[in-house]
Amino acid sequence: MKKYTSLILVGIIVVLAAGLAGTLLYLKNQPPQERGFEPIVEIAPLEPDSSEWGINFPNEYATLVKTKDNGTPTTYGGSEKFSHLIEDPRQVILFAGYSFSKEYNEDRGHQNSLTDVRAIRRVDEKTHATCYSCKSSDNPRLWSEMGMEAYDAKMFSEMTPEIQNPIGCANCHEAGTMRLIVTNPALEAALQALGKDWQTFTRQEMRSIVCANCHVEYYLAGDIKYLTFPWADGTRVEEIIEYYDGIGFSDWKYPGAETPMLKAQHPDFEMFTADSTHYKAGVACADCHMPYLRDGAAKYSSHDIHSPLLNPEQACGQCHTDLDYVVERVKTIQDEVYKAKLATEDAIVDAITAIQAAANVLDVDPILLDEARTLHRHAQFRWDFVSAENSMGFHNPEEVLRILGDATNLARQAQMKAAQAAHAPSILETGSYYTLPSVPTPAP
Amino acid sequence: MKKYTSLILVGIIVVLAAGLAGTLLYLKNQPPQERGFEPIVEIAPLEPDSSEWGINFPNEYATLVKTKDNGTPTTYGGSEKFSHLIEDPRQVILFAGYSFSKEYNEDRGHQNSLTDVRAIRRVDEKTHATCYSCKSSDNPRLWSEMGMEAYDAKMFSEMTPEIQNPIGCANCHEAGTMRLIVTNPALEAALQALGKDWQTFTRQEMRSIVCANCHVEYYLAGDIKYLTFPWADGTRVEEIIEYYDGIGFSDWKYPGAETPMLKAQHPDFEMFTADSTHYKAGVACADCHMPYLRDGAAKYSSHDIHSPLLNPEQACGQCHTDLDYVVERVKTIQDEVYKAKLATEDAIVDAITAIQAAANVLDVDPILLDEARTLHRHAQFRWDFVSAENSMGFHNPEEVLRILGDATNLARQAQMKAAQAAHAPSILETGSYYTLPSVPTPAP
Repeated sequence: MKKYTSLILVGIIVVLAAGLAGTLLYLKNQPPQERGFEPIVEIAPLEPDSSEWGINFPNEYATLVKTKDNGTPTTYGGSEKFSHLIEDPRQVILFAGYSFSKEYNEDRGHQNSLTDVRAIRRVDEKTHATCYSCKSSDNPRLWSEMGMEAYDAKMFSEMTPEIQNPIGCANCHEAGTMRLIVTNPALEAALQALGKDWQTFTRQEMRSIVCANCHVEYYLAGDIKYLTFPWADGTRVEEIIEYYDGIGFSDWKYPGAETPMLKAQHPDFEMFTADSTHYKAGVACADCHMPYLRDGAAKYSSHDIHSPLLNPEQACGQCHTDLDYVVERVKTIQDEVYKAKLATEDAIVDAITAIQAAANVLDVDPILLDEARTLHRHAQFRWDFVSAENSMGFHNPEEVLRILGDATNLARQAQMKAAQAAHAPSILETGSYYTLPSVPTPAP
Repeated sequence: MKKYTSLILVGIIVVLAAGLAGTLLYLKNQPPQERGFEPIVEIAPLEPDSSEWGINFPNEYATLVKTKDNGTPTTYGGSEKFSHLIEDPRQVILFAGYSFSKEYNEDRGHQNSLTDVRAIRRVDEKTHATCYSCKSSDNPRLWSEMGMEAYDAKMFSEMTPEIQNPIGCANCHEAGTMRLIVTNPALEAALQALGKDWQTFTRQEMRSIVCANCHVEYYLAGDIKYLTFPWADGTRVEEIIEYYDGIGFSDWKYPGAETPMLKAQHPDFEMFTADSTHYKAGVACADCHMPYLRDGAAKYSSHDIHSPLLNPEQACGQCHTDLDYVVERVKTIQDEVYKAKLATEDAIVDAITAIQAAANVLDVDPILLDEARTLHRHAQFRWDFVSAENSMGFHNPEEVLRILGDATNLARQAQMKAAQAAHAPSILETGSYYTLPSVPTPAP
C-alpha cells in the first residue's frame, strides 16, 4: 500500500509541475494586450517617441523600425526613392508649372518620412507646416496643444524644431488602452461630413480607417493652408471632382494652357473602399499590409508596412493557398493598368499641346477654350487619382481601369474642343509627347 | 453450440444481404461511363438525335432539353430573345449597312438553335449553309459525309432539309466512348495553326475547348464562305485584328463612311482564356456553366447550359462559400462594364458621323481620311469583341475594360483624323448619337 501511495504522490507532482511549466510558457507567449497586461513602463498620452512604446511592445516596435530599410523593390513600387520623372518623363509635362515637375520620387517606408519630406525640393520658403501633417508622430501632441489651425498657419521651417519623430505609434494608437484611434482632425471632420463617427466603428473597420489618417486625397484650404479632405460629396473620384469644382479650388494653373489644375495625393483609402473585391470581402488594409506574425506562441501584427508582394506567404497566405497564382494575378493586373495609364498620359499630353496652341490663336472662341480646359482638368485629375495611388491599380482593378478609360476619353475631347475653339484642325496631331523634356536631376 | 451456429449463420446471411443490396444501390446510382457501362441502346457514330443518346444518359438528356425554356432573364442576358437594337439603339447606327442592323436578338438556349436561326431576318437567299455550322447536331455527320467545303458552298436553304436537330450530344461527344471531342473542322484547323493538338489535351482542357466548337470569333472565307477562325497570329483581340488586316478581310463597308468593317461573333473562349482570373485558376467553362448535380448518389454534369447567375449555389458554390458576395461582385463588374461599353459606343458614333461628313468634303485629304477609317475599323471591332461576347465582361473584367478603353481612345482619334482630313473642326461635335434612329420591328 505504501508503494502505491508513493507512486500516486509522484504522479500528482509530475502532473502539477507539467501544468505549472505549461501555464508559465503560455503566459510568456501571450501578446501583452491580451493578458491583462501590466506595462513595463507607463506611456504618457500622445507620447511621440515610438521607442518608448517599444519597451512594452518589442515585436511591434522591431518591425516598425524595419521600415527604414528600402528592401527589395517591386516592379512598380517598393521603398526605393526612384524618380517618377526619370522613369516616365511624360510626367514632367503633366506637372509643368507645379512643384511635382521639379522632383517626384517614390515614397519610402514610414521611418523615412521626416528625412524624405525635409530633403524634397518641392518644399521651399513658402511651404506651410501642413506638409508635416502626415510625416510625424509629434503631430497628435502638437495638434492637441496648438490646434490644427495654428499648426497649419505656421511655415514649414518654423515647425521643424518641434518635429523630431517620423511616423510612429502615436499616429494610430491611444497610449494606455492601445486601441486604434483616428488622430488626424481632418479625417475626423471628413467622416463627420459624411455622417460617420469612427468611435462606433468595428475593430476591422478601424484596421482600415487609421490608414486614412494619411493615405487619402486632401487639399490645403484657404490662406492658412488648412488640411482638408474633399469628401463632403462622397469619396469616388467623380464626387471629389464635383466637390473641387463646387468650391472653385485649383492647385495651380497649367502654363500656356491656363487650365486650373488639381493635383491628386495618394487616395489609397478611397480607391480600396470604392467597392473593390477585397474590401467587399471584408478585408482591411492591415490584413494585407500588416499580417499577423508569430514570435513563439505570441501573435502580433507586423508594423513593417510595405507591398504584400514582398511577403505573400504572410500577406496573401492568410486567405489564399495558391500563392504562385495570386502573385501572378497581381503582376498581370498591374501590367495592364500600367499600359492603360501610359495611354491616358499620351492623350492628356496631346490635349495640353492642343490647348496651348489654341490659346495662342487670336480669334479663339473663349467659351469653347474654357470647355477644353475643364475637360483637361477633369481628365488629368482622374489619371492622377490612379497614378498617385500606391498600388498600380491592384487596390481596385475594375475601378482603376474604368477611371483611366474615362480619363482618356475626356482628354481626347479636350483636344477636340481646343481645335474647335481655334478653328484649327491642325492641332489635332497625336503623339506630341515623343518630344520628351529633359528631366531635372533629383536631389542627392 | 447449435444455438451459436444458428446465430452465426443468420449473421452471415444478414451481412451478405445488406452487402448485396448496398452494391446494387451503388451500381444503380453510378454514372454509366464510370461503371464499365453496358449501354441500353447502341449509339451509332455521329448520331444526330440526342433523344437516342438520352436513353443511355437520362439525366444529361433531361437537362439538355431544359435549354428550350427561356427561364428567368438575368440583368444583361438570359435566354429571352429580346432585341439588342431596341435595348440600345446606338447599335442600329453601329451596324448600319449590315444585317445586324435589321435584327439582333439575344441568343437563347441550345435547344432553340435551329428555330432561331431559321427565324432571324439576317438570313436571306444569299446566305450560305455555313450559318448552320453552330446550330445543329447533324453537322458532324454532314461534315464527315460531304466535307466542310461542299457544305459551306451550299446555300442555307439548300441544306435546310438535311438539318433536323438543334445543338446536341454529337456536337461534343464521341458515340460509344462518350469522350469529349472537337467536332468542328474549323476549330481543329485553328488549333493546328497555333501548333496545338486537342488529342493531347487533359480532360479539364477538353471541358473548355469543346465550347470553342462554336463560342469563338470566326469569319467566312472566300466565295464559298468557308468557316475559318482568325487565330493564326493568336487569340487576343489585337492579334485577331492583325490577322484580318493582313488578309484584307472585311464583313461590310460602312455606308457614307466607306470604312471596311469587321463584325465580331461571340468570342467567349478567346476572352475567357486571355489570362482571366478564373482561367488562370484552372477553371473550365463547364465548371461554371455545367456544374455537377446529383441524382441520388449519381453525379452528372448539368447540360442545361445558361448563366451561372441562375444557379449560383451549384455554379459558384463548388469553390466559393460566400454566395451573396460573389453574386454581388458579378453585378458590380457587369454594371461598370456596361457603362464603359456605352461610352465607347458614343465615341464610335461620333467617329462615324465625322468620317461621313469628311467624306463629303470636296478637297478632303484622302490619306488622312483612310487613317480615320482604319481607326474606326479597329475601334469598332474592339468594342464588338466585348459587346458580342456573352458575359458583359465577367469572363475577363480587366481584359474587357482595357479593350474598351483602347476602343474609345481609337474612336476619338478617328474623329480627329476625319476633322484633319476635312480641314473642318466643325465636325468634332460630340454626342451626335442623341438623334437615335428608329428601330426595325423584330420578327414575330
